Amino acid sequence: MKHALQIFACNASRGLAAEICSRLGIRPGRIEISRFSNDNLRVQIQENVRERDVYVVQSFTEPVSDHIMELLITLDALRSASAQRITAVIPYYSYARSDKKDAPRISITARLIADMLKTAGADRVLTMDLHADQVHGFFSVPVDHLTAIPTIAEHFRAHHELSNMVAVATDAGGAKRVGRFSERLGIPMAIIDKRRVNDTAVKHGEVVGEVRGRDVVIFEDEISTGATVLSSVDILKTAGARSAHVGAVHGVLCGPAVERLRNADLESIVVTNTVNRAEEKQLPNLATLTVAPLFAAAIERIHSGESVGVLFD
Amino acid sequence: MKHALQIFACNASRGLAAEICSRLGIRPGRIEISRFSNDNLRVQIQENVRERDVYVVQSFTEPVSDHIMELLITLDALRSASAQRITAVIPYYSYARSDKKDAPRISITARLIADMLKTAGADRVLTMDLHADQVHGFFSVPVDHLTAIPTIAEHFRAHHELSNMVAVATDAGGAKRVGRFSERLGIPMAIIDKRRVNDTAVKHGEVVGEVRGRDVVIFEDEISTGATVLSSVDILKTAGARSAHVGAVHGVLCGPAVERLRNADLESIVVTNTVNRAEEKQLPNLATLTVAPLFAAAIERIHSGESVGVLFD
Amino acid sequence: MKHALQIFACNASRGLAAEICSRLGIRPGRIEISRFSNDNLRVQIQENVRERDVYVVQSFTEPVSDHIMELLITLDALRSASAQRITAVIPYYSYARSDKKDAPRISITARLIADMLKTAGADRVLTMDLHADQVHGFFSVPVDHLTAIPTIAEHFRAHHELSNMVAVATDAGGAKRVGRFSERLGIPMAIIDKRRVNDTAVKHGEVVGEVRGRDVVIFEDEISTGATVLSSVDILKTAGARSAHVGAVHGVLCGPAVERLRNADLESIVVTNTVNRAEEKQLPNLATLTVAPLFAAAIERIHSGESVGVLFD
Amino acid sequence: MKHALQIFACNASRGLAAEICSRLGIRPGRIEISRFSNDNLRVQIQENVRERDVYVVQSFTEPVSDHIMELLITLDALRSASAQRITAVIPYYSYARSDKKDAPRISITARLIADMLKTAGADRVLTMDLHADQVHGFFSVPVDHLTAIPTIAEHFRAHHELSNMVAVATDAGGAKRVGRFSERLGIPMAIIDKRRVNDTAVKHGEVVGEVRGRDVVIFEDEISTGATVLSSVDILKTAGARSAHVGAVHGVLCGPAVERLRNADLESIVVTNTVNRAEEKQLPNLATLTVAPLFAAAIERIHSGESVGVLFD
Amino acid sequence: MKHALQIFACNASRGLAAEICSRLGIRPGRIEISRFSNDNLRVQIQENVRERDVYVVQSFTEPVSDHIMELLITLDALRSASAQRITAVIPYYSYARSDKKDAPRISITARLIADMLKTAGADRVLTMDLHADQVHGFFSVPVDHLTAIPTIAEHFRAHHELSNMVAVATDAGGAKRVGRFSERLGIPMAIIDKRRVNDTAVKHGEVVGEVRGRDVVIFEDEISTGATVLSSVDILKTAGARSAHVGAVHGVLCGPAVERLRNADLESIVVTNTVNRAEEKQLPNLATLTVAPLFAAAIERIHSGESVGVLFD
Amino acid sequence: MKHALQIFACNASRGLAAEICSRLGIRPGRIEISRFSNDNLRVQIQENVRERDVYVVQSFTEPVSDHIMELLITLDALRSASAQRITAVIPYYSYARSDKKDAPRISITARLIADMLKTAGADRVLTMDLHADQVHGFFSVPVDHLTAIPTIAEHFRAHHELSNMVAVATDAGGAKRVGRFSERLGIPMAIIDKRRVNDTAVKHGEVVGEVRGRDVVIFEDEISTGATVLSSVDILKTAGARSAHVGAVHGVLCGPAVERLRNADLESIVVTNTVNRAEEKQLPNLATLTVAPLFAAAIERIHSGESVGVLFD
Repeated sequence: MKHALQIFACNASRGLAAEICSRLGIRPGRIEISRFSNDNLRVQIQENVRERDVYVVQSFTEPVSDHIMELLITLDALRSASAQRITAVIPYYSYARSDKKDAPRISITARLIADMLKTAGADRVLTMDLHADQVHGFFSVPVDHLTAIPTIAEHFRAHHELSNMVAVATDAGGAKRVGRFSERLGIPMAIIDKRRVNDTAVKHGEVVGEVRGRDVVIFEDEISTGATVLSSVDILKTAGARSAHVGAVHGVLCGPAVERLRNADLESIVVTNTVNRAEEKQLPNLATLTVAPLFAAAIERIHSGESVGVLFD
Repeated sequence: MKHALQIFACNASRGLAAEICSRLGIRPGRIEISRFSNDNLRVQIQENVRERDVYVVQSFTEPVSDHIMELLITLDALRSASAQRITAVIPYYSYARSDKKDAPRISITARLIADMLKTAGADRVLTMDLHADQVHGFFSVPVDHLTAIPTIAEHFRAHHELSNMVAVATDAGGAKRVGRFSERLGIPMAIIDKRRVNDTAVKHGEVVGEVRGRDVVIFEDEISTGATVLSSVDILKTAGARSAHVGAVHGVLCGPAVERLRNADLESIVVTNTVNRAEEKQLPNLATLTVAPLFAAAIERIHSGESVGVLFD
Repeated sequence: MKHALQIFACNASRGLAAEICSRLGIRPGRIEISRFSNDNLRVQIQENVRERDVYVVQSFTEPVSDHIMELLITLDALRSASAQRITAVIPYYSYARSDKKDAPRISITARLIADMLKTAGADRVLTMDLHADQVHGFFSVPVDHLTAIPTIAEHFRAHHELSNMVAVATDAGGAKRVGRFSERLGIPMAIIDKRRVNDTAVKHGEVVGEVRGRDVVIFEDEISTGATVLSSVDILKTAGARSAHVGAVHGVLCGPAVERLRNADLESIVVTNTVNRAEEKQLPNLATLTVAPLFAAAIERIHSGESVGVLFD
Repeated sequence: MKHALQIFACNASRGLAAEICSRLGIRPGRIEISRFSNDNLRVQIQENVRERDVYVVQSFTEPVSDHIMELLITLDALRSASAQRITAVIPYYSYARSDKKDAPRISITARLIADMLKTAGADRVLTMDLHADQVHGFFSVPVDHLTAIPTIAEHFRAHHELSNMVAVATDAGGAKRVGRFSERLGIPMAIIDKRRVNDTAVKHGEVVGEVRGRDVVIFEDEISTGATVLSSVDILKTAGARSAHVGAVHGVLCGPAVERLRNADLESIVVTNTVNRAEEKQLPNLATLTVAPLFAAAIERIHSGESVGVLFD
Repeated sequence: MKHALQIFACNASRGLAAEICSRLGIRPGRIEISRFSNDNLRVQIQENVRERDVYVVQSFTEPVSDHIMELLITLDALRSASAQRITAVIPYYSYARSDKKDAPRISITARLIADMLKTAGADRVLTMDLHADQVHGFFSVPVDHLTAIPTIAEHFRAHHELSNMVAVATDAGGAKRVGRFSERLGIPMAIIDKRRVNDTAVKHGEVVGEVRGRDVVIFEDEISTGATVLSSVDILKTAGARSAHVGAVHGVLCGPAVERLRNADLESIVVTNTVNRAEEKQLPNLATLTVAPLFAAAIERIHSGESVGVLFD
Repeated sequence: MKHALQIFACNASRGLAAEICSRLGIRPGRIEISRFSNDNLRVQIQENVRERDVYVVQSFTEPVSDHIMELLITLDALRSASAQRITAVIPYYSYARSDKKDAPRISITARLIADMLKTAGADRVLTMDLHADQVHGFFSVPVDHLTAIPTIAEHFRAHHELSNMVAVATDAGGAKRVGRFSERLGIPMAIIDKRRVNDTAVKHGEVVGEVRGRDVVIFEDEISTGATVLSSVDILKTAGARSAHVGAVHGVLCGPAVERLRNADLESIVVTNTVNRAEEKQLPNLATLTVAPLFAAAIERIHSGESVGVLFD
């Protein structure tokens, strides 16, 4: 019984956790998350976790603050309940985008949350496609950093003719990620170079690289409101692109995103299920790939002390 | 300019902070709290804080998770912006109620939040009437713990005839607080003793002490939904109380509270402004006492190195 | 052999530790505690503890400072001797009473000692009936917090007629504990409300609740000099109590306690053996209940990763 | 005298530190760095630093390990000599390039060094143009992160005709930096997209963007052996570039760099003096811009509590 | 008022602290150290210490555990009372003798206490003649390490004819200290080489070096029971010494020490007042040199940011 | 497979690690240490270490800074690769000599390195013959401190006639070590007492103890340049010694050491292989004893949870 594997889900990731558990042939741990009348959260672990190897799955989706607090309180409850080792499994680590000081006197919140996870009791972190690879270094606990880029690339290879395709980064910061994606598919890349003209105006982005007559795949780590995707499609079409697809790991699709994407001039949209979404049926050209097999395999390997890296060889 | 005093307000306490600043003759620091499309919070301190002695005011009111995250991110932004000393001013520390393990495998979240405040950069904490005095000991940074009990007691002395009054605790856990309140007014006390009869039923509370024919003052640290107040009035009236008042430091008044209290058989309700509320006009018998003078005096004394304790001598 | 269970006793708790070991069918670990000529303590662990699961039993009884230092030095010796996990077993954590700032510029020493236990090497703490439940939150390591209240309550149920009994708290701060005790026995409760009249005089306490003609049980977490018990018996008898008993978890019984209690108007005195006492034979109406079975069961469950909470279901 | 400003230089940055001191009108602090016969380093601070605001200047140049150890030992000596505040000034933080896990089981050494600086006693860090902006988040102490990009951009504006110029990133990872540089000059950008064809061969990079007939400026954070610059010039010339310049913040110029660059088909080379180099006279088309004014201004502002950010408005 | 200097004394060092204060022209801070009936200590700082530069004087003399606990609790009280900086002044750090593992599974308690001082709130330590110089490195806070060796050496120079004198170490471990003492006086040294012959017997020590016909000065860091001094005098006389003196920094003189030394064949005994002793009048040939001037000067210099090292130039 | 033992060698100790592995019947772990063009080190662990019990062997030999950085980076790589427990095996911990403040404003670097090892991820340390026993206390992780003194003593017993031998310490600081060595061989000891005569001259050392007509063995913890050995031989011969040997644990033999020792008037030189040396063939009278059996036995016992101390009983 000792050191046995247990997986708990917080509210943002019940579906994904259930799928992971199903693949591993275990049932999710019993946990109750409730709210006091003064809006304080309360978490109770409802089964013995002493000396267990425990994993808590929680994506940082809307409402983000509640979901982070749920996770932190759950970690603390597990620690004081004497779990042997606690891994925070965060398929979508939203604050990874707050990873640098691009304005004075702001917080590098991706680092702050990393520190708070440790304060709350996380011994390890398992996550996927952080906004920048460097965010890995924000954690002082060991991190296993999975990627769904191969999964999405294989989807494109299986469903589309690649010979006329070009992968596009929506800004210079995404060039590296798109380089990795396009290299895997053996297709060229382009980037949209956006810049400020003066204090009040942002110049319409220029396409760096060749897209005329090509089928473009906009590739991102996440799609939130869809605004960037829309303006990018516009720029690319203006620059002569024949058709447009979009691929992203984290399909946040918040606010007006579904509405926007439904009306956009897009052949297909591909995301994964790191984020639970209810509205996706309204997007007929949306494909949601599951990352549960990846997470299940990683958890099994972490638990048994086998290499996780080999999953990506 | 060095070591100058600066006060910032997060969203939960803009009103109280403005009042504190006004008393101190300074303007609140400029700060912008916004939200990215993926629901991540973003805080920017909009003026130089290097080497300043900074205070951030934020009560943990609904939405609690957002307000806690706002405070943590603000603290982190201030620290990395090189503030000289940072004091988290938390008039209402809601999680103080999660101060013990009264069920298996829960989190003592009051301690967790205390640790997270330190992780985020708080050098000190200034707070008021924590649910239990012991919560003071959860912090590893110095805490100044103010109390509004004298303020509320003086209000009763000024507005009511005390000779027939009895202060009442709504359960055994509140006896100590009510003892302190009643001692200050020189009136007797009673407590309502609630207990489980068996697994499914909670016995209607017994009044321990004498309330027949008396004017009772139910005294609490906080009123949230008003349910406890209502059932207590009921028990006390059944036990022969002539009239009922209620006093509490933190007037959370969430959910159905205003509706309930308006219809309750209560002579008067007294709270402070540690919590901002919009609905209070609907409660004609509500008096809201301001704690701004106390906080202003405490901040001034912390800043200048004078004793804070003398405020309560 | 690895991860095997080992129990060591420091000087304050050799008897209790021997009883715990006996129940678990193991012999106490060999340890030598001595004193250099300059009054420095020296602790030597006299058998191999590498990779063992080690428990050190030590109550904070007189001389408290020596007993705390003994424990700290023992923890440090075990850590540097490569014990796999170290649990400080502290049946009586005396400093739990220093749990709040009830005067300016004092130390919340219960928190300080909690931090020092961690500094010295404790990975966990196992303790019993802390003065306030909140003290649990002072520890940053996992704590198992046992209670002897059911044990003492069962003793009263077995030996006394309950129908005329009332449980009494000696001050408002103890109301919660007495509530728990009286609820378990299904008897009413009362509290003694003591307060200052002015700067120089403390008013003789008032009894809140009904004790006239009843058999009262004063219930406390600890009895030290017996002064509070004596004055409480006096107040209760004056208020008409028919007979008086006293129950407490920690029978510290220091200074004039034995003398006082022998001469007091008390039917019976019930404590546990969290504190070793030599003088108890002189108290004919004293019953000392053993907590060794509780500690033995808890240690066994911590060691094997089973739930400790179920001991109290 | 208290809190007075003092600047010390370790061996890698004596020249730059002297220039900074000269601008601030102070003399460098006396420090002796020597070596024991067993190759251990020894650092002695040779003047009183109690309660001083101390800055230690040291770039991580060859021999890097010695220079890092020198800095760590100096920080420790200053701390134990009771300096009031210690800022590690690291113009060239070489390990910033080890900022992610791009291979299994490697160290994110940029984070490790950040932690070691704190362990050794650094209260703050002042650095320049870290390889990735995210490395800022590796530090748990406040960091002021200067940039020489405006300085280098102004040099190009002053000395070259911009109308036909294109800024080029040597790989996708540098796109963001080049975007910033080109935006400041109002010129277009391009990137060289290098990728593996198979396990043994790296495909000759493709130029993404338009360079035919243009004057290209390769822009990098650092030039070490010059290999990347050389191969990039080759690719760009093949793609039709008319002329080539190179700009970089950190002119490491190690190994065969000087030789290579002298023979390369380059109009001009621009670096700063974050790295001390002796060989630069051999590069007639090299311009070395001084960053001493930036560091001097930043130190002055950190010392006096004024905004550092305004230096870049 | 801010950052003003305040000195508090705990019970072991009230006399020395008063002398230090007198030299500095300030009065000792008001502090109350008392004991609860359960033998718990209670410390209350009885004046405002916010933003003060505070020093607490306490030697680790008998009862050592109580004196250490007093100091730790005082440090904690000062920290939570918002002292600006806290220096633990420990003239005699008794546990410095527990500085190594000379037996299996013991504690290096000198390191443990150093860590606990930091845990309790000490920002700095000021101490004198630690048993080994290396103990300095056990502290993670800055330490000023004074020495009374020059003071004692000057006493010998002033009162004795040096030409025939030899300084003697009572074992090999003390050779370095005696080397320093004898070098200052310009006299030769000798050491007593004690060793085990077999498991049960310790061989009578051999004198290494020349003492025949000489006046020997046994020099130690501390004298506790006097046993070592006595046996050393015996050995030296047997080896032909003409007369014997003894000098030591810490005159612990516990247990039978006074009785022994009075009857010993000693010309003179010289110690300092790092330890308070009542019995010294019974030793007519004892000279107690005061270290108050050294401590006063060190505190003044630490407070004002001047070099402490120059006191020993 | 879990918790299996793995041993890695960094560059300074490949030979010794291979010998240790050979004795344990395992092969050394695969690790690649390389250098980027900017002189940054890069370490890659080339096999899975999850949940393994890992030992890294690295002596701090020339180039010391590189070897320390190699070890720190390796520890960090192992930690983030999820090793279960990491032991830094440092046969020669060169900085142990920087163990005290014998000059103002220097670093106690032995403590700094101890802290950095922990920061980098070492859970334990295994080392040999630290310059002073107290250095053990600088580490906050458990340390196993081996000694080669018995090994060297046995060598002398086996190869030399002891009856006329005297062990000699080259200064007072080494007296304790020599005492231990000579006691094991049952021979007398002497020390060389060196001291400053005035500010500019160091007096030629005096021999304390009897060496005339004896065979002396100079015993040290390390021999670096051989200067001390040479001057000591000179002093001892002048004082009448018949022949001279030298024994030391750490045969650093750097700079002119081999040349010097070859020409010195020495019968024999005995060191161990904690330091790898190439030049030793040039010293015909050098015997290098292997410590591999000791390290192998210690590692095996640490891994399996058996006592290491018994190796020295």
